Amino acid sequence: MSEAVWLVLAARGFGGLTLRAVAAQMGVSTGLLTHYFPDKRSLIRHAVDVAERRAQQRTRHSSEQEGLPALRSALLDVLPLTPESGAMSRVWVGYWDGALADEDLGMNQQRRYARWRAALREHIAAARRDGEVGDTDPDDLAAISAAFAHGLVVQALFDPGRFPPVRQTELLDQFLHGLAASGARPFRSTPT
Amino acid sequence: MSEAVWLVLAARGFGGLTLRAVAAQMGVSTGLLTHYFPDKRSLIRHAVDVAERRAQQRTRHSSEQEGLPALRSALLDVLPLTPESGAMSRVWVGYWDGALADEDLGMNQQRRYARWRAALREHIAAARRDGEVGDTDPDDLAAISAAFAHGLVVQALFDPGRFPPVRQTELLDQFLHGLAASGARPFRSTPT
Repeated sequence: MSEAVWLVLAARGFGGLTLRAVAAQMGVSTGLLTHYFPDKRSLIRHAVDVAERRAQQRTRHSSEQEGLPALRSALLDVLPLTPESGAMSRVWVGYWDGALADEDLGMNQQRRYARWRAALREHIAAARRDGEVGDTDPDDLAAISAAFAHGLVVQALFDPGRFPPVRQTELLDQFLHGLAASGARPFRSTPT
Repeated sequence: MSEAVWLVLAARGFGGLTLRAVAAQMGVSTGLLTHYFPDKRSLIRHAVDVAERRAQQRTRHSSEQEGLPALRSALLDVLPLTPESGAMSRVWVGYWDGALADEDLGMNQQRRYARWRAALREHIAAARRDGEVGDTDPDDLAAISAAFAHGLVVQALFDPGRFPPVRQTELLDQFLHGLAASGARPFRSTPT
């Protein structure tokens, strides 16, 4: 059942996730599925679990590294660099719409972001101890890194021709270079 | 009618945009609206136009500035810093889901991104001429800046308590500081 839910998600996103579509994917009746998913929300919750488990399985090499290389690996993990990770990205970007419209799902997504930033922050704190980045607040750099990665995901999904894997990786390295170069004095423009 | 479409969008996002909801907002019959919008797609197209016009009206101070201050203003313009711009951000993030599922809408979004990056690129090229940023490809920095801003929008929408306007602005300034500090040699980690 989880496999069927994932296949529907990957093909149609959360917007196209219906009991009927999952039943068709499994070759069973919609009525049978209502025993497992009495309403749309329970189906979405299950789908979020499935997508989260898939995302965790994808987390690859961060454990053997630390500092900037670990940060780089963690950000590479969320970029749509392969067909499989592209499908995963597509699912999560599509999820934002529904999650913003639903308080429970929105809180769930808020916690996922907080956990992800905390993981990125560890790598940044290690990078700072080793002098790989300047004396900048690791919380700031974690939020900035998460922002950069997700914003690149969206651009790459809409324009895979202009953002092939090699280009995404170049942009990530360019971004990390700026992070490494940034010190304690933030840029301030004149007040507007 | 455009006002009614906008109010439905702001309250429910593209996912909740239906002929019935717009008709209810206007106090007319759904049947009347089908003269203007024969199908869901024509309603969505109109809604995209409405949202785009609103977004352009919001573009504020960029014209009087150039270089990094102009880039800063252009990025501030997309952040959810007020209730009105929060509603706008909410609408666009919700739009990504539908646009990724529809070829025409996806192409439209691809072109919008390209136009936005081109506008950001002008500011970055000016900043480079004036020595405000290092000798880095303006196309790279435009894509990175767009990524950062949209990724921050998503985090702020899910967690307005942790990302109030002052925090978003701090993160933007920190990000721009890294941009200003970045030179020609991108960070390269060991191959993975």
